[in-house]
Amino acid sequence: MNFSVIHKDSRTAARSGLLRTDHGEIPTPVFMPVGTKASVKSVEPEELTAQQTHIILANTYHLYLRPGNGIVGKAGGVHRFMNWHKPLLTDSGGYQVYSLSELRTIDEEGVRFKSHIDGSMLYFTPENVIDTQRIIGSDIMMPLDECPPWPAEKTYVQESGDMTVRWAERAKKHFESTQPHYNHSQALFGITQGGTYADLRTQVSKELVDLDFDGYSIGGLAVGEPAEEMYRILELSHTVLPENKPRYLMGVGTPENILNAIERGVDMFDCVIPTREARNGRVYTRNGHINLRSARFAEDFTPIDEGFDNHVCRNYSRAYIRHLLNVGEILGLKLCTLHNISFFMWLTRTAREQIIRGSFREWKDSFLQTFNAGKQS
Amino acid sequence: MNFSVIHKDSRTAARSGLLRTDHGEIPTPVFMPVGTKASVKSVEPEELTAQQTHIILANTYHLYLRPGNGIVGKAGGVHRFMNWHKPLLTDSGGYQVYSLSELRTIDEEGVRFKSHIDGSMLYFTPENVIDTQRIIGSDIMMPLDECPPWPAEKTYVQESGDMTVRWAERAKKHFESTQPHYNHSQALFGITQGGTYADLRTQVSKELVDLDFDGYSIGGLAVGEPAEEMYRILELSHTVLPENKPRYLMGVGTPENILNAIERGVDMFDCVIPTREARNGRVYTRNGHINLRSARFAEDFTPIDEGFDNHVCRNYSRAYIRHLLNVGEILGLKLCTLHNISFFMWLTRTAREQIIRGSFREWKDSFLQTFNAGKQS
Repeated sequence: MNFSVIHKDSRTAARSGLLRTDHGEIPTPVFMPVGTKASVKSVEPEELTAQQTHIILANTYHLYLRPGNGIVGKAGGVHRFMNWHKPLLTDSGGYQVYSLSELRTIDEEGVRFKSHIDGSMLYFTPENVIDTQRIIGSDIMMPLDECPPWPAEKTYVQESGDMTVRWAERAKKHFESTQPHYNHSQALFGITQGGTYADLRTQVSKELVDLDFDGYSIGGLAVGEPAEEMYRILELSHTVLPENKPRYLMGVGTPENILNAIERGVDMFDCVIPTREARNGRVYTRNGHINLRSARFAEDFTPIDEGFDNHVCRNYSRAYIRHLLNVGEILGLKLCTLHNISFFMWLTRTAREQIIRGSFREWKDSFLQTFNAGKQS
Repeated sequence: MNFSVIHKDSRTAARSGLLRTDHGEIPTPVFMPVGTKASVKSVEPEELTAQQTHIILANTYHLYLRPGNGIVGKAGGVHRFMNWHKPLLTDSGGYQVYSLSELRTIDEEGVRFKSHIDGSMLYFTPENVIDTQRIIGSDIMMPLDECPPWPAEKTYVQESGDMTVRWAERAKKHFESTQPHYNHSQALFGITQGGTYADLRTQVSKELVDLDFDGYSIGGLAVGEPAEEMYRILELSHTVLPENKPRYLMGVGTPENILNAIERGVDMFDCVIPTREARNGRVYTRNGHINLRSARFAEDFTPIDEGFDNHVCRNYSRAYIRHLLNVGEILGLKLCTLHNISFFMWLTRTAREQIIRGSFREWKDSFLQTFNAGKQS
């Protein structure tokens, strides 16, 4: 993996770059649709490509449970298993251990937890999580970390952050002593923690930078803290993280969060918002989001976003999609999902173009003004 | 609409033909995927086209309830509403009135029934069902009929059949006194009833032939009677129905039923089997159907039907689709659906090619032998 910053905005920390992997190039800033269980819900890989998706995310925790390492390994990795031949990033599963599993006990060695599927007892260590990601074959891997809730006591965040650094060091060592299973190379990012405590975040970030990862994920944000707190931590991260490595803000977010993070030097994003909200009928337009379940769209034969040039807007009306959602047709969920993915890809792609053109700040302000003025439900 | 029989099999009643509509030509024999509520569940119109689908079916009863004539009319008909620009056939809704609604009372004038959606009282007559199909804009319309259950007393089937003929006459009169709402012509078929009583079926068929419809649907079959009873009625229908009009066997069926009906002179079929069974994981192969939910496919990385050249078999393995079904991913339902549609389209397309080539009988016997030998679940 190789990353170059290509353009730097003169007035903000925003930058455009190019991330090269053996499965192809990723122009940044970039949004990564979430394909937790080796499927971006309801859409086919070639449909993602048609919406200019460059990279997707899958989840180590979920794939480890089902279909499991045995099947993924026999399939020759997740790219081949799901027929996605562009870059793939995997989360370590640390976050899911805390959010989904029961009876977890964590110690220096790793985390023991009960599967939320069948109740069996499982054990994740920094080393075996790398092994699983070797089997998955993701282009970009994440180390096991601990993600504290917000708010949390400083002492706890400090101890947890220190352990996350020690785990990162073990992960890197194991990463360096193992090889990819397939014919492509894999990169390993470090995940910064430290909550919203500036000194702790700085300390963890610096220690990870000393370990020299291929890129840096900013973790433990978007967990309930006010957006301003998150932005403050991003500004701090910008000064501590090396300029020539990609920065990935995990689990973010709304269009506003994404643009504000790009302005603060973030390159990569993933979030379930476009896909999860789509399944509830919420779709994104340049004039805010709307909920197509609403009866007010029953006779609205315009596209979701008039003049927005994507597959869904070219072919279907709000009234038709509203009908599909209203009668429980699966196709409604799929069309909303595909539209939202297309919208989020357009958002980060346009941000990139505006950075290159030197007009990012003006475009962002203008976009958000229109977007927030129109936001409806 | 215009129909020509192009090839007649010398040893059976099978024939290949061409049905021309303003939305395009339909080579027969043909299978019509079911898009009850203006959506073939989980797939997009362009995906149907890619699987060589020539015509789909929608349902007047369901569309009348939701989205309703007001919205369909404002959309400019169902073709535009759902973005399907090839031929569309609509069932009259008669069958659904009997199978889904409660508290129906039927008299000479029409049928009064309670909506299964909101409990409101509704009224279908031969005339207003034509009006609704004018609003839908289907290329081929069906008249309101009564479909008796099987078995049923002869007296009841006779009285019901007589009424269906009188309703067909009223439907035809109303059809002739009204105009299409859009820029394409619409055809009206007659639906034969009479159950499995040869004399009644013959009588109803002859009376409908005297009324001179654009084509003839064979109704009231595939409602629980033994297959041999159905085949006997098809053989009888072949002798009574005019050779130069298309024949549509409603609601049929399995690959075996379809091929046996083609052999007896049927041109058109619709059935929920490929789409409904797909959503339960059952997929069709030339070696029988299999259920992809089964654990025995967990590590089977071959396509659904090795060597079958369609989108799903080219891109996905049994193991991947089994995983999708196992973890509840929508994409699993969609891939099974798309495969089964492709399989049923292949079945009738191949039957047509074999009729033209003069080898229908041999091919059918050989196909069914392999198919039935391999059938698993």
